[in-house]
Amino acid sequence: MLSTSVLTFLDFFGTAVFAISGALTAGRKQFDIFGVLVVALITAIGGGTLRDLVLNAHPIAWVENTAYLYVGMGAALSAFLVMRFYPIPQKALDTCDAVGLAFFAMAGIQKAQALGHGTEICLIMGIMTGVAGGVLRDIICNDIPLVMHKEVYAVAALAGGGLYLLLVYLGLNDGSAMIIGMLAILVLRLIGIYKGLSIPVLSVRD
Amino acid sequence: MLSTSVLTFLDFFGTAVFAISGALTAGRKQFDIFGVLVVALITAIGGGTLRDLVLNAHPIAWVENTAYLYVGMGAALSAFLVMRFYPIPQKALDTCDAVGLAFFAMAGIQKAQALGHGTEICLIMGIMTGVAGGVLRDIICNDIPLVMHKEVYAVAALAGGGLYLLLVYLGLNDGSAMIIGMLAILVLRLIGIYKGLSIPVLSVRD
Amino acid sequence: MLSTSVLTFLDFFGTAVFAISGALTAGRKQFDIFGVLVVALITAIGGGTLRDLVLNAHPIAWVENTAYLYVGMGAALSAFLVMRFYPIPQKALDTCDAVGLAFFAMAGIQKAQALGHGTEICLIMGIMTGVAGGVLRDIICNDIPLVMHKEVYAVAALAGGGLYLLLVYLGLNDGSAMIIGMLAILVLRLIGIYKGLSIPVLSVRD
Repeated sequence: MLSTSVLTFLDFFGTAVFAISGALTAGRKQFDIFGVLVVALITAIGGGTLRDLVLNAHPIAWVENTAYLYVGMGAALSAFLVMRFYPIPQKALDTCDAVGLAFFAMAGIQKAQALGHGTEICLIMGIMTGVAGGVLRDIICNDIPLVMHKEVYAVAALAGGGLYLLLVYLGLNDGSAMIIGMLAILVLRLIGIYKGLSIPVLSVRD
Repeated sequence: MLSTSVLTFLDFFGTAVFAISGALTAGRKQFDIFGVLVVALITAIGGGTLRDLVLNAHPIAWVENTAYLYVGMGAALSAFLVMRFYPIPQKALDTCDAVGLAFFAMAGIQKAQALGHGTEICLIMGIMTGVAGGVLRDIICNDIPLVMHKEVYAVAALAGGGLYLLLVYLGLNDGSAMIIGMLAILVLRLIGIYKGLSIPVLSVRD
Repeated sequence: MLSTSVLTFLDFFGTAVFAISGALTAGRKQFDIFGVLVVALITAIGGGTLRDLVLNAHPIAWVENTAYLYVGMGAALSAFLVMRFYPIPQKALDTCDAVGLAFFAMAGIQKAQALGHGTEICLIMGIMTGVAGGVLRDIICNDIPLVMHKEVYAVAALAGGGLYLLLVYLGLNDGSAMIIGMLAILVLRLIGIYKGLSIPVLSVRD
């Protein structure tokens, strides 16, 4: 249903927006050019790398196809260039990031499915692919990972991924189910961004 | 000597107590439910995952048997529920954690032995299995890892693991040696907790 | 050109100086002896371990040859002993560290080449081998990684590694190209240390 060229576009698009998110976070910490590029790449490819290591799926995507690295570095540097002349609003970046999350989560689920794993592992790999890069970004920048206490983020990936698996189980074709699952992630995430929706905090009193 | 059902019980028990430890640490940081569950799982399965990656031992335990994930998440949520009504004393948690450390360290050693590794790698894998989950927990929560400057912790795993390997080398059967090694870890760790025993700090003057 | 015994000496030398760097960082954070040794080993073998995981190159060097662990621990403890009587100047340590960087970067490139990877992956593996251990050291010690905002460091590895690959491509024999590449890394890094040369910071205004 979804043509290969659309999937490839989304994959590179996800890499680019996650790289920009990493580059901007590193830029706010006064990292040098090298540091900015490293954090950009780790944000963009960290989740998929961790997934492939855990699933023993070698070669890892960017080791086999270095185009991912060029897309990530190009996007990071372009973002810096653009922002010299025109400040990109945070919500525009967050919206791009939501598209990246939607596709990366679905890509992670599909990779795990292709390797024959069950529902739980597929969902966990979807979440891992979508959020681990951002967690690594925040750890390197010495911040508490945003995803741990931010508006609906990983839960959007979980819900959309679960919807996709349910629809396929119910007999819908893979392409349609994937589009619906991705839209669900996107919509949930955008509600989180624009309405400030959060999931409950579990607090412990000392 | 030790029946399989006892070993399985200890494995799940270790997973549960480490998940609780992760959940409580995350709860103190005001993470949302998702963040709490992620930190709980990483604390519980992080050490074994790192060990299996380094030893190239695939599939990783929780990828093959997702029961570990349910045990970890169930324990984390139960701990939060219980603590609403009844504050669990820190020393009770530490005592459970000591049992978890004792079993995880021994499980790590046995996994490395089964793969044919020598004494040093077995001991390092025992320590890694017992402490790496807690190190990851503290890194995600943006704390300096407790194990680096806490009362006797990893050293207990090293001593008990070494005792186990020595006893097997001297001809004791595996089950008895394992029980003695685990008890040694437990006793050393409890002395650390209840007597405040620490190992020396190596300090550098700037 | 370079005899095996020279290469082995440089490999252990790199392990030793990186272990010392990790031990001193941990010592400044008041870690206990165990913590100091763990941070020393992670600094010394972390980069190579990450490289081997990503390239699926098993067994990992130190799992196969535990001499690396003894060299790292021995160097870390010796550094502490020496510093009780005689403070080692920071620049002496930095100079040793530059030699370690030069060799580790080259060793990473050669490992990737031996596995049949192309130029970009070889360079990335060179940088990863040279700097990832220090990044892990700083993450565990809850600092922002030095390499992200320090004088010329990873860029030295990139430049020297690129020079090596270029010279081999142009027909120079491997041993000579390697010596020139390593000297280039060393000289660039020493200029960074002694002249305070840094690469530009990319900053973002909020």
